[in-house]
Amino acid sequence: MNSFGTLFRLTTFGESHGPAIGGVIDGMPAGFELDFDEIQHQLDRRKPGQSAIVTARKESDQVKFLSGIFEGKTTGTPIGFVIENNDQHSNDYENMRHCFRPSHADYTYQTKYGIRDYRGGGRSSARETASRVVGGALARQVLDSKGIKVTAYTSQVGHIVIDKDYTRYDLDLAETNLVRCPDISVAEAMEAIIRDVKAQGDTIGGVVSCVVKGMPVGLGEPVFGKLHAQLAAAMMSINAAKGFDYGMGFGGVTMKGSQAIDRFYTTSDGSVRTRTNMSGGIQGGISNGEDIYFRVAFKPVATLLQEIETITDRGEATTLKTRGRHDPCVVARAVPVVEAMAAMVILDALLLDKTVHL
Amino acid sequence: MNSFGTLFRLTTFGESHGPAIGGVIDGMPAGFELDFDEIQHQLDRRKPGQSAIVTARKESDQVKFLSGIFEGKTTGTPIGFVIENNDQHSNDYENMRHCFRPSHADYTYQTKYGIRDYRGGGRSSARETASRVVGGALARQVLDSKGIKVTAYTSQVGHIVIDKDYTRYDLDLAETNLVRCPDISVAEAMEAIIRDVKAQGDTIGGVVSCVVKGMPVGLGEPVFGKLHAQLAAAMMSINAAKGFDYGMGFGGVTMKGSQAIDRFYTTSDGSVRTRTNMSGGIQGGISNGEDIYFRVAFKPVATLLQEIETITDRGEATTLKTRGRHDPCVVARAVPVVEAMAAMVILDALLLDKTVHL
Amino acid sequence: MNSFGTLFRLTTFGESHGPAIGGVIDGMPAGFELDFDEIQHQLDRRKPGQSAIVTARKESDQVKFLSGIFEGKTTGTPIGFVIENNDQHSNDYENMRHCFRPSHADYTYQTKYGIRDYRGGGRSSARETASRVVGGALARQVLDSKGIKVTAYTSQVGHIVIDKDYTRYDLDLAETNLVRCPDISVAEAMEAIIRDVKAQGDTIGGVVSCVVKGMPVGLGEPVFGKLHAQLAAAMMSINAAKGFDYGMGFGGVTMKGSQAIDRFYTTSDGSVRTRTNMSGGIQGGISNGEDIYFRVAFKPVATLLQEIETITDRGEATTLKTRGRHDPCVVARAVPVVEAMAAMVILDALLLDKTVHL
Amino acid sequence: MNSFGTLFRLTTFGESHGPAIGGVIDGMPAGFELDFDEIQHQLDRRKPGQSAIVTARKESDQVKFLSGIFEGKTTGTPIGFVIENNDQHSNDYENMRHCFRPSHADYTYQTKYGIRDYRGGGRSSARETASRVVGGALARQVLDSKGIKVTAYTSQVGHIVIDKDYTRYDLDLAETNLVRCPDISVAEAMEAIIRDVKAQGDTIGGVVSCVVKGMPVGLGEPVFGKLHAQLAAAMMSINAAKGFDYGMGFGGVTMKGSQAIDRFYTTSDGSVRTRTNMSGGIQGGISNGEDIYFRVAFKPVATLLQEIETITDRGEATTLKTRGRHDPCVVARAVPVVEAMAAMVILDALLLDKTVHL
Repeated sequence: MNSFGTLFRLTTFGESHGPAIGGVIDGMPAGFELDFDEIQHQLDRRKPGQSAIVTARKESDQVKFLSGIFEGKTTGTPIGFVIENNDQHSNDYENMRHCFRPSHADYTYQTKYGIRDYRGGGRSSARETASRVVGGALARQVLDSKGIKVTAYTSQVGHIVIDKDYTRYDLDLAETNLVRCPDISVAEAMEAIIRDVKAQGDTIGGVVSCVVKGMPVGLGEPVFGKLHAQLAAAMMSINAAKGFDYGMGFGGVTMKGSQAIDRFYTTSDGSVRTRTNMSGGIQGGISNGEDIYFRVAFKPVATLLQEIETITDRGEATTLKTRGRHDPCVVARAVPVVEAMAAMVILDALLLDKTVHL
Repeated sequence: MNSFGTLFRLTTFGESHGPAIGGVIDGMPAGFELDFDEIQHQLDRRKPGQSAIVTARKESDQVKFLSGIFEGKTTGTPIGFVIENNDQHSNDYENMRHCFRPSHADYTYQTKYGIRDYRGGGRSSARETASRVVGGALARQVLDSKGIKVTAYTSQVGHIVIDKDYTRYDLDLAETNLVRCPDISVAEAMEAIIRDVKAQGDTIGGVVSCVVKGMPVGLGEPVFGKLHAQLAAAMMSINAAKGFDYGMGFGGVTMKGSQAIDRFYTTSDGSVRTRTNMSGGIQGGISNGEDIYFRVAFKPVATLLQEIETITDRGEATTLKTRGRHDPCVVARAVPVVEAMAAMVILDALLLDKTVHL
Repeated sequence: MNSFGTLFRLTTFGESHGPAIGGVIDGMPAGFELDFDEIQHQLDRRKPGQSAIVTARKESDQVKFLSGIFEGKTTGTPIGFVIENNDQHSNDYENMRHCFRPSHADYTYQTKYGIRDYRGGGRSSARETASRVVGGALARQVLDSKGIKVTAYTSQVGHIVIDKDYTRYDLDLAETNLVRCPDISVAEAMEAIIRDVKAQGDTIGGVVSCVVKGMPVGLGEPVFGKLHAQLAAAMMSINAAKGFDYGMGFGGVTMKGSQAIDRFYTTSDGSVRTRTNMSGGIQGGISNGEDIYFRVAFKPVATLLQEIETITDRGEATTLKTRGRHDPCVVARAVPVVEAMAAMVILDALLLDKTVHL
Repeated sequence: MNSFGTLFRLTTFGESHGPAIGGVIDGMPAGFELDFDEIQHQLDRRKPGQSAIVTARKESDQVKFLSGIFEGKTTGTPIGFVIENNDQHSNDYENMRHCFRPSHADYTYQTKYGIRDYRGGGRSSARETASRVVGGALARQVLDSKGIKVTAYTSQVGHIVIDKDYTRYDLDLAETNLVRCPDISVAEAMEAIIRDVKAQGDTIGGVVSCVVKGMPVGLGEPVFGKLHAQLAAAMMSINAAKGFDYGMGFGGVTMKGSQAIDRFYTTSDGSVRTRTNMSGGIQGGISNGEDIYFRVAFKPVATLLQEIETITDRGEATTLKTRGRHDPCVVARAVPVVEAMAAMVILDALLLDKTVHL
């Protein structure tokens, strides 16, 4: 199942060590003038080799569009695109051919399909998310034109958590540091812990938070297409994601209803608002116009620079030592992927909402 | 969007105060002999009025099947069913006609659709989940026949949490108490807190955990139909759900990779297992044969037996006092709904997995 | 696969001899005031027992709506409905339990599903089309409000064909005779041939033509959702349909391009029209604003009042004599079904077209 | 809507004069060893410039696979592919920028999307069908391995029709002549007529017939996914298709039921067969094991080498003379496209049928 979305629909293909990855975007609104530099900028935010705290792989991640765009504008026809795989050290992976890395997808892919491209994780590689960033980059340009802004940032690495509400931060500051955290001093602590685990050949988990501002009222399709259900599916489809919550989230479990309800009021210009936003901008699965905010938990990735006991595809005990390059913590590079997936969900919801009335 | 699933597909309809709710199940395997008492039993587990800690509404929730079953067996054709709405105190809701209850779906439905059935929440009422329980009851019978068992239970109410791993409990004990918690002494504390908030006209949040045992290896459809992404979407579509995590979940954020990886080993009978199960039974979006376990966070519901300030549909300030009947904590009745949604996801995945090989 | 449509989506259930048939309509525009008499009128046009040239079965075909409508208007939530099965002479069918009627679906259903409800054809009965007429009745009311009118009529029975172009007829005259043919004298000849084959215990084929007037430009979703491809799928899903063509259709095969092209011109009010309409109102899969017209070929139904050689479900030779009631020619009752399916396709296309621009 | 199929799913992209066309195949069974020469052979059958009776455009139509294949075998992950556009005489089309060719998709695309790539028809170009041939080439290799064989051929050009039943021909002979007709002498007459219209700068219509042998019983998903409804949608989505019928088709309209029913009998080895095959191998929407056969009507294409009156995109009268290259009759090149679409429908049905039983 390699397609995502109902009306704005991304289909992706590609393994980390094949000739290219890519995708097809179907349902992009027609006549939209694209900013290609901005698309590439989003890819650059995700690409490996950006800094000392992410993997040292070097991939230029240049996207090439093959269709659906004419004289700089979208035509309403499907947008095919490819990103070539350049820095393929395929030989690095020969030792993985007959070996299942713990907590990776080697064993499950091999069992499900009876075959796998073992090089670099193949289809299960996070490299696939570059195609999602392309889809998201187009979606976010449309959202921008409607005044809707999606911003994600790192809110936790290991035990280091930003302790204030997102409304207390200038979220744009997230892009000023390597971990993408809007609290500069916390960012330093996060960076330190990442360097530390890296030095140990180990990895660490983290949380990416995301805020959508400028939301119209009415997006989301109950009962099975509730906006937060779509966001949850989108986020949980990202590699290494282990949890999702929105609004009061898991924190709401310990609250009483009287503390948790968002009281309505009418502003001087007649618009309906809520005094608090425990609901996270969504009520009954439909946006209420307040900011949407949600969190995505990422596990510590399982690629360790340590010798690890595991088994071969014949079930024999063996040890494996990964050579080379990996991310000690995924959150910094996950930030643009979370934004991309969120942007696609919101745009799809916007298009679906247009069909409620004739 | 009122359909759920790809091959095993449930479509639901119905408002809380219309003549009936119901649904259509498409893709149920053919020739399966149904246990109708067991289906009704699942509905009884969800229905209101079961005990002192849930809403006092009385609904018999008798399901009537209209098609797709012949001489007690499924025929492979769609299974239509209805559940009549009996205990409709529609007059109780007249005060809601022009009034938006805080943190309910009144405002968002009214704005999205321009109209709403305001009685009892209409389509946004949790009553709709009865149809899901019917779908899930069929799915779980199929899963049972394959040795797959889905069990949910209450693991947290307010600050009261069960403190041990699920493997340390006899999960069947959950059905022996009103809150559906497998730890009897914790259950008592949970029940006490629920009675307490009820006495205050207030409500409290909670967590439902779910375990799937007997999983085959190979279920789940990367990259967008990863098994945990499907589970997340399913769970987040349940009324009042605010969060989802699986395996190490949000707890994994603070872990190092070296602590979090699940080492493989081969059993004496040659099967592949992992020594730990931080992955929650899913790797790369595909089941690995270990138990699946996940958590769903539920907010304190917003129906309070207190006078609440809110606004009318003209934006004027008003107060609202809900009469009568509500759930002080949803978890006990959410347990069978979580199981139902999980069962449908797993069965759908089982059917999809059959198509990988010819 | 018992759902039809993308945004306007009908899911049907029900066998001819179960307690009821019915369906769920999802995606009906919100706030639409329904004319319930008109819905019932459409069902009455399809129901058996209307006249001497259709089956003598008596079914009242009263539709009961269960949801999605509030105070006479649609609410944007799914519309569940049921039609009870009344006149079930199930005993008439006992001889079919172990016997495969030739050119019916008995053998294929039995083989595919391993089980079948043999009474009256079960799910394969044309009775299922009553649910389609309900869905179509809602869709056509929406289309009417947009000035789009769908009209089907009988254009051929056996060798009796209306020989003029549809534009030469007052299509409303079709409803004035039993066969639903707008040419009154041809209608008489058609009726005569139907009475004749009926007297022989035999059946005869026919063609239903359909015209859609008032079409906007732009409906249809290339390349796989071309408007005529959607219409073809819709029509071919009707029981006994064997062929579909539109515009010049099979007749265009013998034409030269220079005879077949529709030359554009601009009207005095500036709108773009074509001088001829060989294209049948669709170019490149998208409506061009001209009338859509298409034909659907129906076979002579296989239920004969004659003793027929066939085999049992054990493969043994046997003979079967159908008792009772059947349609000697389906076209008269197929007319409202063709209209219903066309109306749903057009409305779905209208909703999809709204999403092309933001 | 640029995706086709449910489980075996092809998504295509690409305009005739962009850098490349291509697609993604999702749901291809895993572990299947591909014959790449055979895939290219199918593309060669469709490509322009093959002979004197098709367009003189020269395109090499080399397919390049980007993913989903490892060491020659499918991996169960999506198969991305591209075909570069080489022979783009884009300047040939400058005169079409502001001009709507009659009976092409220029006007409808421009109106629907507000923009179009006018070069060579853009997305509406039949060049897109090359991607379908790739998808079909993979599907047919799987079908071949199951003993299912799809063969299409030209059965009519203008008034020249083959007059015998398909069972009387060696269908492989179709590949021995330029028009792809299995009756060699009829083929000559067809070729003559095509040369004749070509000399006049004109075009002519035709019919492609298709036969599927080796069908298992049970494929097809009533009521909306009937096998012939899926075939109809597939065929009508091909450029220039105007009609579809199967089995007795439009010819059945004039038949009586007693002539048209297919009597069952049991063979000496116990299998169930029918003495005739008016049903075209499908009963109740499900294959019955007999040969499937159907026809697709193609119009005379609208690209004439004549000066044609038309209008500009401002509605002004103008004339247009197409330069260069076109197909005087599409049937010869439509044959492999019909086969490709049929193969994808059948494989999808085969995969879906696996899910009926557990």
